[in-house]
Amino acid sequence: MTATKGERTRARLTAATAALLQKQGYHATGLAEIVATAGAPRGSVYFYFPGGKEALACAALAAAGAEWRTRIEALIAGAPDLGSAVVAVCDELGRELEASGYTHGCPLATVALEAAGTSDAVRATVAAHYDGWIDALAAHLVSHGVPAAVAPRFARFALAAIEGALMLAKVARSRAPLTEAGETLRAMMALVPRVAG
Amino acid sequence: MTATKGERTRARLTAATAALLQKQGYHATGLAEIVATAGAPRGSVYFYFPGGKEALACAALAAAGAEWRTRIEALIAGAPDLGSAVVAVCDELGRELEASGYTHGCPLATVALEAAGTSDAVRATVAAHYDGWIDALAAHLVSHGVPAAVAPRFARFALAAIEGALMLAKVARSRAPLTEAGETLRAMMALVPRVAG
Repeated sequence: MTATKGERTRARLTAATAALLQKQGYHATGLAEIVATAGAPRGSVYFYFPGGKEALACAALAAAGAEWRTRIEALIAGAPDLGSAVVAVCDELGRELEASGYTHGCPLATVALEAAGTSDAVRATVAAHYDGWIDALAAHLVSHGVPAAVAPRFARFALAAIEGALMLAKVARSRAPLTEAGETLRAMMALVPRVAG
Repeated sequence: MTATKGERTRARLTAATAALLQKQGYHATGLAEIVATAGAPRGSVYFYFPGGKEALACAALAAAGAEWRTRIEALIAGAPDLGSAVVAVCDELGRELEASGYTHGCPLATVALEAAGTSDAVRATVAAHYDGWIDALAAHLVSHGVPAAVAPRFARFALAAIEGALMLAKVARSRAPLTEAGETLRAMMALVPRVAG
């Protein structure tokens, strides 16, 4: 099915917004910059997103969150075991961060921190995606024999450690915190019931 | 020694900037809001901080980072062992976050993510403080018998996990991710050479 011109414009606006939010966050990103980056007419924003910047940001965060989840699920599916999977995810995040000149961290984290206190729509969008990632990781853990009673807790801890390592790596301009987090989580994976129980 | 009027004005500007950066980040924080929050004359910013907002932000981040380090060192010093110390730190961070209506997370993290790619002065200030916290935690680990070869790596991992948990807690408006991270890190502490080695 071919996308209509309107669908393509909407997708360009969403993609441009997602890229700007990932790089510089919510407050630094204005509609003029979004429109220029997307190569879209100015009026198109309010045509497709009557809620303006906040609605566009929520759509962009939802799309970026879903895309990352697909990529991360593929990495996990392609790994021989959970420990290798978490190392593969951290390595991929580190490669992307380095390739972007240390500007592309988590597509949600910057906005999560700066806008959580000012826009509840943005906060709720980000929270829903983090919950979705935690649920997906917990399901993988359970499918690999981790007790269901500890899987969600360990999944949330692993997400926290990876998000924190992404931030330290961005600030230090070094992949080392991510690489180390992957290795440490791999070592923990073998001990999960004992560590998280 | 009594502070001069100039020193008090400088301190008020720095404290107001630190509070605004913690709550909403770098890009959302303008000089007019800083001056109004501090109750300082507009001209005072460029008098005390000729480098303007970027210089003021670096001073504020340095002051907030040093204050947090003092508080965290006191919590660690007052705990009977390392595991209790990490739980106490996570509990204190969770209490402050909740008491602020889930707006006060790490005083450096928001700025770290949004400004790391646009201001190298801000990035370097944040990086220096994270390195200082990692060094301090690694020294505590070594003083409690953790091998010096693995202490810095485990310290960086613990900082990443706590920073990530602070972010998840802020977004979810729940202390649970922090409480769980503290408990999981406590369980890891008993296994450090094995987990991080």
